[in-house]
Amino acid sequence: MLTLYDCATAPSPRRARIFLAEKGLAHATVPVDLRSREQLGEAYRQINPEATVPALRTEDGQVWTDNAAIAAYLEARYPHPPLLGVTPAEKAEVASWNGRAEFEGLMAIAEAFRNSTPAMAQRALPGVVDYPQIPALAERGLARIDHFFDQLNARLAGRAFIATERFSVADITAVVAVDFARIVKRQPGEAHPHLLRWRAALAQRPSMAL
Amino acid sequence: MLTLYDCATAPSPRRARIFLAEKGLAHATVPVDLRSREQLGEAYRQINPEATVPALRTEDGQVWTDNAAIAAYLEARYPHPPLLGVTPAEKAEVASWNGRAEFEGLMAIAEAFRNSTPAMAQRALPGVVDYPQIPALAERGLARIDHFFDQLNARLAGRAFIATERFSVADITAVVAVDFARIVKRQPGEAHPHLLRWRAALAQRPSMAL
Repeated sequence: MLTLYDCATAPSPRRARIFLAEKGLAHATVPVDLRSREQLGEAYRQINPEATVPALRTEDGQVWTDNAAIAAYLEARYPHPPLLGVTPAEKAEVASWNGRAEFEGLMAIAEAFRNSTPAMAQRALPGVVDYPQIPALAERGLARIDHFFDQLNARLAGRAFIATERFSVADITAVVAVDFARIVKRQPGEAHPHLLRWRAALAQRPSMAL
Repeated sequence: MLTLYDCATAPSPRRARIFLAEKGLAHATVPVDLRSREQLGEAYRQINPEATVPALRTEDGQVWTDNAAIAAYLEARYPHPPLLGVTPAEKAEVASWNGRAEFEGLMAIAEAFRNSTPAMAQRALPGVVDYPQIPALAERGLARIDHFFDQLNARLAGRAFIATERFSVADITAVVAVDFARIVKRQPGEAHPHLLRWRAALAQRPSMAL
């Protein structure tokens, strides 16, 4: 049985939950309480020394400790339905847009959130090292989120999915970013009709409720 | 013929040059002069609207505009030798360590460099949007580089390659990061014997001279 070390409120494990659901893979869940910093405790670091969620334990006991590893493993082990593209060109588009959703979307939101919220003092980056907040980075994060929404909206003009003609991990990463932006009071609006249409259509997929 | 839009002094296009060489793929080179900001000019933005290098034009005229896309495309189109792993577990290890070398290594160096160098004023991030420098982010970048060297050294204890039993894109990304750290006066030293051994062994590969 696959086991996901998860946290219901955090964006990174949500990416893994949706990926598993889209593959049709059942799994056990072990909740990790980020609010009490359980991820930094000795017990969880025995599982994932990087002290981050998600982590995925496979049926034969391997543990993958980030979304890049989890997606690569699951796609190779359970190829259908494909979420990383099939042809060389599809694989390139998916990798590119997944990376952009991660760097321009999720990372911008994380910068805005982690560098401004009192509860994240000294936790400006995830992982085992404490880094102090940088207020100017929070501000820059907000500006980058606005740019990301504009870029995503432009890409989605006339398209059902971000990377290719079918749903892919790039859609997963982007939807998790777009939804999580609410934590810093950002959401797509009138200026983003294509993005809003894409998000509304995705809501039909059961995985999006996860 | 493959065509690489390249810049000899920048780390990101070096990743693509090494990847192509390890695949044994000949290609034409179009130099892009980052010093004069040619990448931001109209001509280059016709090729890559994101205004970054590298970009790779394929034999059938597709253009991939980041290393994620370039690696995914080349691996699928020219599978031998494999650089992204073969088994599901290998693919996971390669994706994970490539991502870490990118985020914990290259990004930390970019933060340290772009947020401190007078020539990079207003260019704290690559791409079409200008962002001002954040001095505190330059400082944090230096601390993260030190942590990255320590992590990489620990990983390489008893190992020939970072991710799996064979050379992979994770080695490429990591070596480009380690070499580029010199631009902010950081290099591995006595505290990093495994990292130094790995780097010395890699020097035997012709691709490393690129």
